Amino acid sequence: MGVITLTTDFGTADWFVGTMKGVILGIAARASVIDITHDIEPGDIRSGAFAVMAGCRFFPRKTVHVAVVDPGVGSDRAAIAVETADYFFVGPDNGVLSWALARERIKNLRRLENGKYFRHPVSHTFHGRDIFAPVAAHLSTGVPMRQLGPAQADFVSLEWRQPVQKPRGIQGEVIWIDRFGNAITNIHEAELSQPGFQACTVWLGNRRLGRVQSFYQAVARGRPVAVIGSSGFLEVAVNRARADRSLGLKVGTRIRLEFDPVR
Amino acid sequence: MGVITLTTDFGTADWFVGTMKGVILGIAARASVIDITHDIEPGDIRSGAFAVMAGCRFFPRKTVHVAVVDPGVGSDRAAIAVETADYFFVGPDNGVLSWALARERIKNLRRLENGKYFRHPVSHTFHGRDIFAPVAAHLSTGVPMRQLGPAQADFVSLEWRQPVQKPRGIQGEVIWIDRFGNAITNIHEAELSQPGFQACTVWLGNRRLGRVQSFYQAVARGRPVAVIGSSGFLEVAVNRARADRSLGLKVGTRIRLEFDPVR
Amino acid sequence: MGVITLTTDFGTADWFVGTMKGVILGIAARASVIDITHDIEPGDIRSGAFAVMAGCRFFPRKTVHVAVVDPGVGSDRAAIAVETADYFFVGPDNGVLSWALARERIKNLRRLENGKYFRHPVSHTFHGRDIFAPVAAHLSTGVPMRQLGPAQADFVSLEWRQPVQKPRGIQGEVIWIDRFGNAITNIHEAELSQPGFQACTVWLGNRRLGRVQSFYQAVARGRPVAVIGSSGFLEVAVNRARADRSLGLKVGTRIRLEFDPVR
Repeated sequence: MGVITLTTDFGTADWFVGTMKGVILGIAARASVIDITHDIEPGDIRSGAFAVMAGCRFFPRKTVHVAVVDPGVGSDRAAIAVETADYFFVGPDNGVLSWALARERIKNLRRLENGKYFRHPVSHTFHGRDIFAPVAAHLSTGVPMRQLGPAQADFVSLEWRQPVQKPRGIQGEVIWIDRFGNAITNIHEAELSQPGFQACTVWLGNRRLGRVQSFYQAVARGRPVAVIGSSGFLEVAVNRARADRSLGLKVGTRIRLEFDPVR
Repeated sequence: MGVITLTTDFGTADWFVGTMKGVILGIAARASVIDITHDIEPGDIRSGAFAVMAGCRFFPRKTVHVAVVDPGVGSDRAAIAVETADYFFVGPDNGVLSWALARERIKNLRRLENGKYFRHPVSHTFHGRDIFAPVAAHLSTGVPMRQLGPAQADFVSLEWRQPVQKPRGIQGEVIWIDRFGNAITNIHEAELSQPGFQACTVWLGNRRLGRVQSFYQAVARGRPVAVIGSSGFLEVAVNRARADRSLGLKVGTRIRLEFDPVR
Repeated sequence: MGVITLTTDFGTADWFVGTMKGVILGIAARASVIDITHDIEPGDIRSGAFAVMAGCRFFPRKTVHVAVVDPGVGSDRAAIAVETADYFFVGPDNGVLSWALARERIKNLRRLENGKYFRHPVSHTFHGRDIFAPVAAHLSTGVPMRQLGPAQADFVSLEWRQPVQKPRGIQGEVIWIDRFGNAITNIHEAELSQPGFQACTVWLGNRRLGRVQSFYQAVARGRPVAVIGSSGFLEVAVNRARADRSLGLKVGTRIRLEFDPVR
């Protein structure tokens, strides 16, 4: 009764995701296969990495998280499976798993080389279906990690742009625009509670967006508001409107926090 | 083996819906979670209410229907669960459940206040994941309604714009444009069988759209046609084309029915 | 624990697909219902037929494949269920199943006329929910084909445009543009291994696209590349870009293969 999640850039207009599920159910008939998203922009490994990181921790223990944003499919990039204290992760070793893995305690990391757990013939252009889906299905049925291939010491990491320390605070940047036009930044809530400071103010360039609030409706309709979003990152929203449009925010836009000292 | 449906405005490009399902499966591992739709326009409570009403009755008894179109998340709007003769409904008490509930026999209505059935910490911006999903999952495993919180006498109702009686018939309005460009109105089939009338003619302003037909191909390709749609509401279509574009229909457009007396 | 797949033109913005699943789970509570795609252009039977053909063979044996692209719903087109050596197929008899069936060994073909296996009342505009979904669910629970209706000798076939023999090779055409902008043609890999030839070159009009390669990154970024895609058809891609836009490809565009004789 295992859970397997899928995060890809395959979209849902073609049959690609469906066939991954078909392959999984052929191996693990009782698996629950859950879509995290398939709408990652084609080849956008960073967005795929963020979606897996943001979503993975809300699933039950032993869930197998599969991420396939894989512009290098068929080339010599490796394929990996990683067992952490809570989960399994399966995907290309191109960084798409790296932000999620950075927050997990890694127990076992294997390079996928044992063709016994692949679907054959293995397509050169669709390892999602022929390697990652069947390996995930086998993991969910209890196949031990060591069967999948040789141990590997490390995995390819995408650079995570840390917020930058500034004289009176920190500067982060927008990393994701969500469905509502909210701009999610790389500033984690852990960074908002620094000793010696009691509150912080959010700035977009010279524009003061105000205090960090608890929810969107803490401000009047149409007004900007910064909140700690549901994944633990600071986000900039506009109550009942799209912050990306009304404030001109996009991935990469800088957001500044100024801390107020305790008086 | 319960069924849980989801109707939201979360879209499918982010990880939001996936994490709701992750939370559900962590509580009710054998639940079947079915998407009604996640493409409700952000904050459009009326469209969410219509989708739940139109879709809910085709599911097996005891299905838990979750609807989250929740622009007031984090504010003081209540959260409710409702048991009816056939189903459970879970969502914010902002009207999104009200049109479905208006057609059900209500047995039990509870305000969600027992944090034991929430996911913790409860985000201020995503009750779909932290309140509605876990409560729905608990209901599907048999947790009694009375455990969820205090009884509540009534729920917030959205105004349902009834068709207006006119001298020779009734006037309704378009309430939903579907994928095919068909315009679904607020005129229910029950309103088409009035004693003393044998047939009715559909008008769009001064344009006669003809009799109510049984199916789209009752008219020539490219011609307008009014039918009783699959949810029981009168809809205006164009055979093999988009009625919304070719007839200029949108939500709110008025449609008139004239009844022919029995001769 | 049967698997049922859905391929439709219903989109996911309305409640239509959800209600098909609701009907299925009311009959076959333990079925896994998998979306192949719901984004077929409304009424585009050929694209629906291609998606079912391209996707169906990656599912476990006994899977019930439902395809509903059905502009003639409610008219006199027949509804059929087909048992093949490996699968069941259910849908309107309008050609949408025909390309998949052409590659299967057919064992039993029935016209759906036994209302016992329909949902009632049967809508005139949504047989997906009222006929195809319940019939598929019943098949997955083991209802014998002979119960569904009378045997039928043949099914409606869409013309499959075969590649045309040319003096030095063959000429095919683009049949599907996928999410990545890759152009999938009607040239199957079986047609690339002809005796007496050792390699082939792909041409788009007077533009030489080069040899058939094994994977997208066999060429430099931004360069066109022809590969055998994951469904076995020749496709034209551009490494890390959209071939449809950069090469001006669309459904119907002609692609030519020239074979090099063994020297």
